[in-house]
Amino acid sequence: MTIADRWLLPDGMDEVLPPQASRMEELRRALLDLYHLWGYDQVMPPPVEFLDSLLTGTGTDLDLQTFKLTDQLSGRMMGVSADVTPQVARMDAHSLKREGPVRLCYCTNVLRAKADQHQGGRSPVQVGVELFGHASLAADLEILLLALESLDVAGAHEIHLALGHVGIYRNLVQAADLNQDAQEAFSAALALKSPGQLEEQVTRHVSDPALADMFRALEELHGGPEVLERAREVFAEAPQAVNDALDKLCDLYRGVSAEHPEVAYYFDLSELRGYQYHTGMMFAAYVPGYGQALAKGGRYDDTGRAFGRARPATGFSMDLKVLASLAPKEPAKDAVWAPAEDAEGLSEAIQALRAQGRRVVRALPGQRTGAEQHGCCERLVSTKQGWTLAPLDEAESA
Amino acid sequence: MTIADRWLLPDGMDEVLPPQASRMEELRRALLDLYHLWGYDQVMPPPVEFLDSLLTGTGTDLDLQTFKLTDQLSGRMMGVSADVTPQVARMDAHSLKREGPVRLCYCTNVLRAKADQHQGGRSPVQVGVELFGHASLAADLEILLLALESLDVAGAHEIHLALGHVGIYRNLVQAADLNQDAQEAFSAALALKSPGQLEEQVTRHVSDPALADMFRALEELHGGPEVLERAREVFAEAPQAVNDALDKLCDLYRGVSAEHPEVAYYFDLSELRGYQYHTGMMFAAYVPGYGQALAKGGRYDDTGRAFGRARPATGFSMDLKVLASLAPKEPAKDAVWAPAEDAEGLSEAIQALRAQGRRVVRALPGQRTGAEQHGCCERLVSTKQGWTLAPLDEAESA
Repeated sequence: MTIADRWLLPDGMDEVLPPQASRMEELRRALLDLYHLWGYDQVMPPPVEFLDSLLTGTGTDLDLQTFKLTDQLSGRMMGVSADVTPQVARMDAHSLKREGPVRLCYCTNVLRAKADQHQGGRSPVQVGVELFGHASLAADLEILLLALESLDVAGAHEIHLALGHVGIYRNLVQAADLNQDAQEAFSAALALKSPGQLEEQVTRHVSDPALADMFRALEELHGGPEVLERAREVFAEAPQAVNDALDKLCDLYRGVSAEHPEVAYYFDLSELRGYQYHTGMMFAAYVPGYGQALAKGGRYDDTGRAFGRARPATGFSMDLKVLASLAPKEPAKDAVWAPAEDAEGLSEAIQALRAQGRRVVRALPGQRTGAEQHGCCERLVSTKQGWTLAPLDEAESA
Repeated sequence: MTIADRWLLPDGMDEVLPPQASRMEELRRALLDLYHLWGYDQVMPPPVEFLDSLLTGTGTDLDLQTFKLTDQLSGRMMGVSADVTPQVARMDAHSLKREGPVRLCYCTNVLRAKADQHQGGRSPVQVGVELFGHASLAADLEILLLALESLDVAGAHEIHLALGHVGIYRNLVQAADLNQDAQEAFSAALALKSPGQLEEQVTRHVSDPALADMFRALEELHGGPEVLERAREVFAEAPQAVNDALDKLCDLYRGVSAEHPEVAYYFDLSELRGYQYHTGMMFAAYVPGYGQALAKGGRYDDTGRAFGRARPATGFSMDLKVLASLAPKEPAKDAVWAPAEDAEGLSEAIQALRAQGRRVVRALPGQRTGAEQHGCCERLVSTKQGWTLAPLDEAESA
């Protein structure tokens, strides 16, 4: 991006030029087709909603990320969608009102007031799926498998999948009866991966020595699948709810790794990103060379409560712009160059080629060059047999 | 829309539910594929730009339609795109900087602060094409033909095409040497189709009796192709530039009607909608039963001047939401229902069906109903020959 471009476009609000835009379009179609085959119905959430419905039941993070607008028609405050997930949950709870499991998918622009710490853009194209109405492991597993399938479609290799379950930490916190301030202090200490700060919080707030050891151990519980074994030992005496969450995580790992042994699995039981939002399993998928997660998701039950129906929900989302950048597209060179002349049979010949799926670019009067720039490899020439295709070079030198 | 829905979503900011969202997706693909075959490259303009670049060289109408946001990063004012056309012109002039003709297409959400007088929605999905760098009739004709082809793809019938050329009126105004105030008064009188007001303006501002008669005649110059004949007589003594514009309009009509004799052509030489914006031909396509135009376009040379390159430009755009509503989609009933059980060979059977393009919805544990709701017509059943397809009813009653 040149200096003039930076001046011209707000930071992180980028335009997509050819051929990358067509790469994004291809990937959009491949993903939505995949979701269709798995039974997910497409929805298009409104790009703008009233703030009270947009931010209902979501955290302050989303509030800070949301551009605010005044509705000139109603005088009420509106927000530009910064995350489609709560909108789709509202659509499930309020607009569709179906009984039983509902599978929805979407692909749409969102806007963020501030760039995410780990993501460059403020104008991602969010693509993803949500499965409502079923709290089972099977639903979570379907979502995980579909996320991995999505990355495969996008051409991602060497996937690292970070898997977690908020129930482990949340039930420890509940057992220790931590108040809001203490919870925030713990979260901050864990996020900083700072043993000193964690120890300080444990000493101050956790009187039960067994529980205190579990909190201390959290920090070390990250790494490959062996972490699950270590966690079993660490939490052997923990409340049942902690072990239930751990069981679910183990089951999920077993299910997904059986189908995808090629993926590198990673567990970090002190990872609390998305903690406020999620209510069960959570995951993030990475590939080498990209700092940010390519796909993020998890379970977030009850988001629809504000709209009259608390529903189990699980899903994931990705940024199509980031995904499409994994495999940048080369300009295609497969079009046909047609002359500008209004010659007999030419329109019909062009029409016939297009009907066969060939791209035909017609020269404009006086235009002598540009065939190459338009990605042409052949041209229509008039012969005794009518209009036929000839190589571009030959005809140009003729 | 129920009362609760109206409360929930801002007026004109609608969500699109299944199956209509998938109808829109189908149409999006069909149109972008069509444009690809004609040599148009897809671009994705940024959803937000700084106001100074977004509104450069556009009229006050667009300014009023544009939602304004403060950029927290730069402190500068930004606008949410309300019309993609000036953005694409900027991309051509500034970002692509190609020599010779450039063909671009797009399909993207835009937002409007106020609903258009003739259009319901404030969140259209704008789809269209632009052809830059060529001022010829051939370029205008290509755009017109592509617009009609687009409507055909969308399943529109009985198309009425209103064709005009701003050069006729603009050169009359110039010949009469009208000042800005007088021009606005004339425009208002013509827009109102008020003979009294028009007569008043003519008497006040036009001293040349021949020119005065031409202004008076404008009002009557609307109707089918015979209008062009009448215009020839009315403007026989008009400045050459008026007749040049009329010639171009006639040529354009000849070109498009030769390929599309089935379309009803309509001319209104006093129609000034888009007058400020356009510099040559302009058109709007209608179908019976819809008050608003399905496609609108025309020539708007020189928009890129503010970005350092004044380029000829012609194009059109449509609202995908309106187009898709022409042929509402019925929910499909072609999916396969698969049991929830983790039975041998089931995953492979599901995978094989999906690889063949069949939609397979897998039941979740404990789910006994929902096959119909998910659009299934068959189900996977276990037989001695392995997993095979059976009709939904038979298997359900089994």
